[in-house]
Amino acid sequence: MKLCRYGLPGKEQPGLLDTDGRIRDLSKHIDDITPAVLSPRMMKHLSELDIDTLPLVEEGVRYGIPVNGIPKIVAVGLNYEDHAKEAGLPVPTEPITFMKAVSSLTGPNDDVMLPQDSTHSDWEVELGVIIGQRMSYVAEEDALSHVAGYVLANDVSERFNQKQRGSQWSKGKGHDTFCPVGPWLVTADELGDPQDLAMYLDVNGERKQTGNTRTMIFTVAEALSYISRYMTLMPGDLVITGTPPGVGEGQKPNAQYLAAGDIMELGIDGLGTQRQTVIAWSRTAIEGDLS
Amino acid sequence: MKLCRYGLPGKEQPGLLDTDGRIRDLSKHIDDITPAVLSPRMMKHLSELDIDTLPLVEEGVRYGIPVNGIPKIVAVGLNYEDHAKEAGLPVPTEPITFMKAVSSLTGPNDDVMLPQDSTHSDWEVELGVIIGQRMSYVAEEDALSHVAGYVLANDVSERFNQKQRGSQWSKGKGHDTFCPVGPWLVTADELGDPQDLAMYLDVNGERKQTGNTRTMIFTVAEALSYISRYMTLMPGDLVITGTPPGVGEGQKPNAQYLAAGDIMELGIDGLGTQRQTVIAWSRTAIEGDLS
Repeated sequence: MKLCRYGLPGKEQPGLLDTDGRIRDLSKHIDDITPAVLSPRMMKHLSELDIDTLPLVEEGVRYGIPVNGIPKIVAVGLNYEDHAKEAGLPVPTEPITFMKAVSSLTGPNDDVMLPQDSTHSDWEVELGVIIGQRMSYVAEEDALSHVAGYVLANDVSERFNQKQRGSQWSKGKGHDTFCPVGPWLVTADELGDPQDLAMYLDVNGERKQTGNTRTMIFTVAEALSYISRYMTLMPGDLVITGTPPGVGEGQKPNAQYLAAGDIMELGIDGLGTQRQTVIAWSRTAIEGDLS
Repeated sequence: MKLCRYGLPGKEQPGLLDTDGRIRDLSKHIDDITPAVLSPRMMKHLSELDIDTLPLVEEGVRYGIPVNGIPKIVAVGLNYEDHAKEAGLPVPTEPITFMKAVSSLTGPNDDVMLPQDSTHSDWEVELGVIIGQRMSYVAEEDALSHVAGYVLANDVSERFNQKQRGSQWSKGKGHDTFCPVGPWLVTADELGDPQDLAMYLDVNGERKQTGNTRTMIFTVAEALSYISRYMTLMPGDLVITGTPPGVGEGQKPNAQYLAAGDIMELGIDGLGTQRQTVIAWSRTAIEGDLS
């Protein structure tokens, strides 16, 4: 099952994709896709609907964040062997984790706005996991059964703010619009094995990142089990699982960062694609978020 | 005005303190104290109520987290001159900030549960700020006008997880029950100057921390303005502003950490007091949170 939220920012409606990839309106069945909807009982209910009876939604609508009210975002850093090698960094012996502000969440094709005076904004295609059931000290072998589904995410990062303003990465990870998510939440049963998914990210039509989740250092199950020992994962929480090689700061011979007008396009097998236009900081664009 | 939420976990009702310090029931006027209630318009509405007409609440009820649905928690690290000196660390040239999981929030007098196998759990009395209006790139001189009010907080921290499992502090800061907040949200107009507040924390009746917000390296206004350049602060967000000297890891001649059975008592001028019993990790205690 592929769940989505569509419509104008702040006015999204719940939807479900049919086998032809068209959005069907779910609003007669649920008010919104919230953490509560991710419970096994509600997901079973939705999976039993007769999709053909759901109203078709007009084509070309905007996709929003697939879950409304994501309580927190936990990220795993440096989680791809080939990325660690490229960066010349030692492979971590346990997951590096940090948090990303929920105020950075945005739709999959919304503009990404550079922070004021930003010169080091960078891209990171990532597999995102949406938690379905509370996880506290959950063993690795039980971890995936707590997952509601998977999403495509771009962990946009301002490297100077991340690394040069103290040691805490959250500072460069939480700018507004720095966490595009979607277009869909693909349920765990539909996606299947999360450790064999190809992924890519292009900037201005040029391939920058190429990877596959099979080169993760810590699998999704390992990462979730680990995180659940340090903070309880709640329904709706988003865990992003690290990025493969090819980020801007790793470009050879020179690092390359985002500028206004750049286009990022990214995708992961089965999870759809995203396309973001990078725009300069402006107060107007921020106030637009309020609409 | 002092706002609070009282009652059993998950079933709290909104309340307001009268001049005798008794809780008055607000549930005829608002359903709950949520981020939306913190808007200047709603706060003005509440301030105009005739308190004497509000029903008295029985004494001895439990205090909950004073705001329901805190979207995120941002913390300032190493923000007291005397604490930096005690720790032998250089005074930061810009605020160190990190995030704390919202799943760590708990009521002011609820038990604090040690993580499994924890040997380095520590206390930190802190002034907390609750945001009332969205803050993005707000100048220092305008920062405090965006504050709804202030709260007492204990930034409980597992030092080993914070510092020895990678560089990212969030890992030792987000355990369940590691962020007791309350008893009240004291509105900005009632508290007055946030830079002249005495604070203390006792463990088992022995004074451990003594401080005053006037020795902050970065004032509340400076910290909020700074953070608003890295992430947008939203209504209901909690910003905790650092701790004065006397944490467990700074005890002489030997560091001292929390053990089951310990009692933490803390307070800040005007913001009330907290009292927590430290308990050992147990699955039962976690499941109890679900009630």
